[in-house]
Amino acid sequence: MNPNLTLLFLITALASGPSLGQSNTNAPVEDWKPASSNQPGKEYPKVNSEGRVKFRIVAPKAQSVGVSFRDSSPFTKGEDGAWYGYTRPLDEGFHYYTLNLDGAEVPDPNSLMFFGAQRWGSAVELPAKDQDFYALRDVPHGQLREVFFPSKSTGTQRRAFVYTPPGYDQNPDQRYPVLYLQHGWGENEYGWGAQGRTREIMDNLIAENKSRPFIIVMIYGMTNETRMGGLRDFDIAPFETVLVKELIPYIDSHFRTLPTQPNRAMAGLSMGGMETRTITLRNLDTFSHIGIFSGGSIGLTNITDLPAFKAGNKLVFVSYGSRELGNSRSGDPKANIEALKAAGIHGVFYVSPDTAHEWQSWRRSLREFAPLLFKD
Amino acid sequence: MNPNLTLLFLITALASGPSLGQSNTNAPVEDWKPASSNQPGKEYPKVNSEGRVKFRIVAPKAQSVGVSFRDSSPFTKGEDGAWYGYTRPLDEGFHYYTLNLDGAEVPDPNSLMFFGAQRWGSAVELPAKDQDFYALRDVPHGQLREVFFPSKSTGTQRRAFVYTPPGYDQNPDQRYPVLYLQHGWGENEYGWGAQGRTREIMDNLIAENKSRPFIIVMIYGMTNETRMGGLRDFDIAPFETVLVKELIPYIDSHFRTLPTQPNRAMAGLSMGGMETRTITLRNLDTFSHIGIFSGGSIGLTNITDLPAFKAGNKLVFVSYGSRELGNSRSGDPKANIEALKAAGIHGVFYVSPDTAHEWQSWRRSLREFAPLLFKD
Repeated sequence: MNPNLTLLFLITALASGPSLGQSNTNAPVEDWKPASSNQPGKEYPKVNSEGRVKFRIVAPKAQSVGVSFRDSSPFTKGEDGAWYGYTRPLDEGFHYYTLNLDGAEVPDPNSLMFFGAQRWGSAVELPAKDQDFYALRDVPHGQLREVFFPSKSTGTQRRAFVYTPPGYDQNPDQRYPVLYLQHGWGENEYGWGAQGRTREIMDNLIAENKSRPFIIVMIYGMTNETRMGGLRDFDIAPFETVLVKELIPYIDSHFRTLPTQPNRAMAGLSMGGMETRTITLRNLDTFSHIGIFSGGSIGLTNITDLPAFKAGNKLVFVSYGSRELGNSRSGDPKANIEALKAAGIHGVFYVSPDTAHEWQSWRRSLREFAPLLFKD
Repeated sequence: MNPNLTLLFLITALASGPSLGQSNTNAPVEDWKPASSNQPGKEYPKVNSEGRVKFRIVAPKAQSVGVSFRDSSPFTKGEDGAWYGYTRPLDEGFHYYTLNLDGAEVPDPNSLMFFGAQRWGSAVELPAKDQDFYALRDVPHGQLREVFFPSKSTGTQRRAFVYTPPGYDQNPDQRYPVLYLQHGWGENEYGWGAQGRTREIMDNLIAENKSRPFIIVMIYGMTNETRMGGLRDFDIAPFETVLVKELIPYIDSHFRTLPTQPNRAMAGLSMGGMETRTITLRNLDTFSHIGIFSGGSIGLTNITDLPAFKAGNKLVFVSYGSRELGNSRSGDPKANIEALKAAGIHGVFYVSPDTAHEWQSWRRSLREFAPLLFKD
């Protein structure tokens, strides 16, 4: 993988949020409320209407306490023996973080745990103006199924999460298209279901008749079980084998799929977008719909056989967060999509407003992408 | 709930492991290996052949580091700036723990995260002589499905985990019995699937023809969403309503169950065992098989209408870990089972060797209980 892209992922992951400005020198607005990402019964972290996050950590004997969000306030010890500190205003949505206690990088014991940045650790959810689209509502719910499938190429039983849409079990004669959906670097197969809110997004879209019901399959996008890998030396071939030769046949034989190319899509975020581009371009007879979220784009120069591509492809969807768009080092994604459209390909370009290389961009990307899939 | 039982749960939860003895004054055996419960790529915690656990935590500026296992060694700072310490020999199996850094109680960043002791936090898995029965093997796998069902009585969409056995989707005309399986106090609906290894245990039993395939349903055993509750003031009625009036009808209408009393079981561990006793005795027309793991027992004095009980009940299974058995304050469970047997009830008493009030006892209890269920 392109080292510049590696760097881009790291830079944008760290830089999410508005740039440092006047606001952080002001006193925070005192309308703090517990974050929805807190552990049961925990008051802290709290979020306020500016998008700041305030932490409380009981560490009576600590010399120094901090948090991984840059430009945060100093932490000070309260009269209760606990330490308090708060962030600059952050983007709406979901952010990983780590506490630092006297030099130890530890999860915040008050936060639910998510896998990102190569570890199960803390994260905070900030309310968003459009959060209703990924809220758990009183609508018919699909199921998120944890499945293990045998992989000969890796000699392992591999975990997949499979979203089956509402009604899947009640309509035993119906068959469904399938989207294969990949996480980013440092994340794993839990990401789209947990921080990505895939089930909630799809349940809500389907309840509003905005998306056709389809199956979504999520697996770990690398094959290095015992050690998280770097991107620089990443060889996609073993993962491609697992996905195309092992997982797809397993899903097609264990779920009521429509097991044909027109009914199969692949999408991914960041590294998962790069994987999607590489794998779909090499397997045009397997996938008809392509989604690349914050992970580069497909230009005409990437397509070696344009007539074959046009014959088989139904959609090339590319998206970015508005705050990361200027950082793209893999060509101008919008221009690439325009060129595809001019060549007669169904290209769609989406920009998530006021978000960076972060889950709020990808939740919105899924919301925009899903309704475009598997149109008859 | 009986306050003595509350106390018992707390005492036994803290006391698991052999009693303090000579062994902890000896130097540990230096055959450390990474624990299977570590995060990807983490070398520590390590476990040795004595059942000790050794920790490494990078905290260069900390004044003191400790771990919640009693009788652990002092933690000392290594030349690499990291702190090291180790436990006394622990029981085989699974144990929650917390690190203490300068007075802050935090999860070990090297451990996978589990929900117990009222929080998502760290735990360690020690190899066990009989661990093959809950290992992930190359056998046909069932699915663990995350499901949300509407609950009018609580006004919430509630999470359930549903284990469907291997072949469930491939045999659309087959219907299955159902076991409702409850966690303990301070735990939640994730417990039996994660630390309990329910899927692995059932997949393996079914592959060996030791158990009939059946569905298992796991939900949170309280109705206090926003704050974990104490046991002392616990009112079981709201949970009983959710389970009996809302969950069971949902499961029977959304899964291919055999929706009759002879095909419905309830079991639970610790607090979940108490819940099982109360709810099954009040709903004899709903449940035919009863399992109580480390949570009291059923004596003849608990049964108000013996002929009715004998007519409907197929099994009363009671189990304990051998190291907690002497602590029982709810009568002699073995004598209670013997009395049931003498009265013509199918009673079974099981003692897990060399374990206490801990998951290894409950994994084994499920292994012993499942083969007794739903015999024609």
